[in-house]
Amino acid sequence: MLHLDKNSGDYLYRQVIDLVVENIESGTLEPGDRLPSLRRMSKHAGVSVPTVRQAYVELERQRKVESRPKSGFYVRNQLRNDIVRPSPGVAPDPGPLQCRSLMERVYEGIYNPELVPLGVANPTMARPAAKSLNRAMKRTLSGADEAVLSYAASHGALPLRRQIAWHYFDTLGARVDPESICITNGGQEGLLLALKAVTRPGDIVAVESPTYHGILELIDSLDLLAVDVSTCPEEGVMTGRLTEVLDRHEVKACVFSTTLNNPLGVTMPDEDRRRLADILADRGIPLIEDDVYGELRFDGVRPVPVQFLDRGVDVITVGSFSKTVAPGYRIGWVVSSSRHDEIHRLKRSFSITSAFVQQLTLADFMSSGDYTRHLNGLRPVLKRNCERMSALVAQHFPAETRVSQPAGGSVLWLELPKSVSGECLFDDALAAGISINPGRIYTPCGCYENFIRLSFGHRWDQRTEDAVKWLGRHVSELAAA
Amino acid sequence: MLHLDKNSGDYLYRQVIDLVVENIESGTLEPGDRLPSLRRMSKHAGVSVPTVRQAYVELERQRKVESRPKSGFYVRNQLRNDIVRPSPGVAPDPGPLQCRSLMERVYEGIYNPELVPLGVANPTMARPAAKSLNRAMKRTLSGADEAVLSYAASHGALPLRRQIAWHYFDTLGARVDPESICITNGGQEGLLLALKAVTRPGDIVAVESPTYHGILELIDSLDLLAVDVSTCPEEGVMTGRLTEVLDRHEVKACVFSTTLNNPLGVTMPDEDRRRLADILADRGIPLIEDDVYGELRFDGVRPVPVQFLDRGVDVITVGSFSKTVAPGYRIGWVVSSSRHDEIHRLKRSFSITSAFVQQLTLADFMSSGDYTRHLNGLRPVLKRNCERMSALVAQHFPAETRVSQPAGGSVLWLELPKSVSGECLFDDALAAGISINPGRIYTPCGCYENFIRLSFGHRWDQRTEDAVKWLGRHVSELAAA
Repeated sequence: MLHLDKNSGDYLYRQVIDLVVENIESGTLEPGDRLPSLRRMSKHAGVSVPTVRQAYVELERQRKVESRPKSGFYVRNQLRNDIVRPSPGVAPDPGPLQCRSLMERVYEGIYNPELVPLGVANPTMARPAAKSLNRAMKRTLSGADEAVLSYAASHGALPLRRQIAWHYFDTLGARVDPESICITNGGQEGLLLALKAVTRPGDIVAVESPTYHGILELIDSLDLLAVDVSTCPEEGVMTGRLTEVLDRHEVKACVFSTTLNNPLGVTMPDEDRRRLADILADRGIPLIEDDVYGELRFDGVRPVPVQFLDRGVDVITVGSFSKTVAPGYRIGWVVSSSRHDEIHRLKRSFSITSAFVQQLTLADFMSSGDYTRHLNGLRPVLKRNCERMSALVAQHFPAETRVSQPAGGSVLWLELPKSVSGECLFDDALAAGISINPGRIYTPCGCYENFIRLSFGHRWDQRTEDAVKWLGRHVSELAAA
Repeated sequence: MLHLDKNSGDYLYRQVIDLVVENIESGTLEPGDRLPSLRRMSKHAGVSVPTVRQAYVELERQRKVESRPKSGFYVRNQLRNDIVRPSPGVAPDPGPLQCRSLMERVYEGIYNPELVPLGVANPTMARPAAKSLNRAMKRTLSGADEAVLSYAASHGALPLRRQIAWHYFDTLGARVDPESICITNGGQEGLLLALKAVTRPGDIVAVESPTYHGILELIDSLDLLAVDVSTCPEEGVMTGRLTEVLDRHEVKACVFSTTLNNPLGVTMPDEDRRRLADILADRGIPLIEDDVYGELRFDGVRPVPVQFLDRGVDVITVGSFSKTVAPGYRIGWVVSSSRHDEIHRLKRSFSITSAFVQQLTLADFMSSGDYTRHLNGLRPVLKRNCERMSALVAQHFPAETRVSQPAGGSVLWLELPKSVSGECLFDDALAAGISINPGRIYTPCGCYENFIRLSFGHRWDQRTEDAVKWLGRHVSELAAA
């Protein structure tokens, strides 16, 4: 119940905000409780409906409450939701990957359908587009006949490159020449081509900490060395730290995810993106921008990749349909104007071209509007899954647990009590039929020992709930031991 | 007309052979003429039908005549069909690829549908399996629903790995563990993974001369150096030369095509395979065996890959559906027992996994028997195309032209008169609407200037005939100039 303070003041808007915050802090309003409707609050507080709306929106911005479509505003789960900012130490020198064997063990479990899949990041499975996609593929097969059996152009089928270019224009107003796009075997091959295009064996590459484990494995396979740059939940890549790293090491390329990075889920604010671009432009260091989660913000806002900021930095942007449509299609792409020829040549020498049927199917899927409809349907499901999983973590994990609050994507990044080993938890969870990812695979240098990544990108069911509860209980036990 | 010698002798069988040879040599029987039927010859020569058959088969073995199913025996085109054996010089030292810019120009034309496609080696297009394949894919889509949208296991879908293993057993009696197979994005990614698994940047890799240009480009992209080993039309890789090269250079791997190599079309005889295996086993050098044409001998005989000879050599065999079923599917594989873990890890870090729908479709295509039926239908068409193109070359190219006589595959390798530049011919042909491949892209060291490769792997039509005639005329003009 709300206790309404009837005093009026100059800023009615401010009054509504204070009122709600006070009630949340006192515990009168609990996480999950619905705020009074706009009309009701207007009546209670004696302010206009638009003013209440304005106040609620401000509260949402402050992450105190959240709106649910056609339902109203709710008090958010007040999780211990700040991942600790990395402490200002000196990053370790680049060295060989220390988590190879652990990574192997993680992968062993990742494709096991018997396990509760909290390990693999596969957002599309939260709401698969199977029907419309399979329909589009059958149309493609019927229409194209034997042409789809043959080679597509090395850098990809023109209809798909055109659709991707058009989508950039449609969502971002960015003008992309279809000839500057190269279709790849998923985002992973995009990263491979990009890295090969800008480095030589032995070079040092800067990565986020924590970063997607597939980047670390790739860097290792290419005989490159990774150096960590601290990433924080507010800004993403910490540009101050980046400068320090660039001063200390001869970095030949950076691989950063600017939107919804994996596993932290942070999106770099525009001013940080610009600062990042300027730092790299100034030093002539190319940026490989991993943008495979760019479409998956819950609010549907599409942040502008550094590629399109026009700050004079050499950017290769990697996109993919694996996180948005179908990982099994193995279709991603690379956008680069300055490096296109080299990337095209590498694509040809590494795998000739990508699967033709999928390229034409995706071109059809995009041009028919099914792609946009699918994304619009997927985002709220992911959001709901995120809320459910966050609430379960808040409820069942020990008090010291900290958890990321991603604005999109499909993963949570958890900092467990210091004494709990993510690797032990991984082993125990596997034995209990649950796959999770231990934090140590997200860095080359062996830290994040007490971190784990949990995926909410799958169909939510009782198994998921039980698994998260089990994990929470088990972490409490490990912490107490 | 045959002039029959009525003298009888001890060896009626020999008599029939002499009779036919004599008539061919005198010009009475011309290339393409049909021999008398078994019954008719039996009557004319006064020998039994089985004896005549035995004689005809011996003539076929001697490549004097050829049998055509349900039609009879025909006089073969007596081409100047010996590619000159490489002269016994010392192979050049390994160095950077000298034909990069020429290769770029070749690729520009390769996917241009306006050109007569004598450049690209795409045998399946001679008789596409579109109907049965598209049917299999639609079945897969209907049956598997949303599962096919997700990731397959990194090293490939088990049903396909099982079918491939079974096919090895079925055709060769070879026992292959499906777990030692890794599905790749076509044979090209198979070569990539194999090379990465056994080399470090800067290493020297031995290749055939001439060899498939895609291998050279790949070696260059991986910062490796290629060294030539002479290949001849009788034995394939000349093992004597190989020994010399291995004595001179610290070779870390060999990439050889043992069956129907590209572009020479030679299949290594069994004894040479064994010798090759022993040399490499003795020195502990791994062999990357490019076996993508293994199924495409016109006679349907499947030579045994070195992989299955059990001679103690470390072999990684690369197979593919690109030359047999559908290059647009981008599905190939690698077989390796000793290197499997490393190859699997590289596959994951380079492209995660391969397209799922295609893997299940091909598993269906194989298990239904469609694969074998398709190959049985494809081989005679390729054979017929080969004969037609060889006959046109014999008829329209200058007398000094030498041409390979492949026993399968989809390409002819032509040695033009010394004064004719394959590169000039390539340029002129392009201007005339014909794509061909100049010989220089088949070696890292800049030789084969007066060689070209012509593909007969497409639907034969008047355009093809006219193109080969035009090429012959133009070569004559260039030779005379």
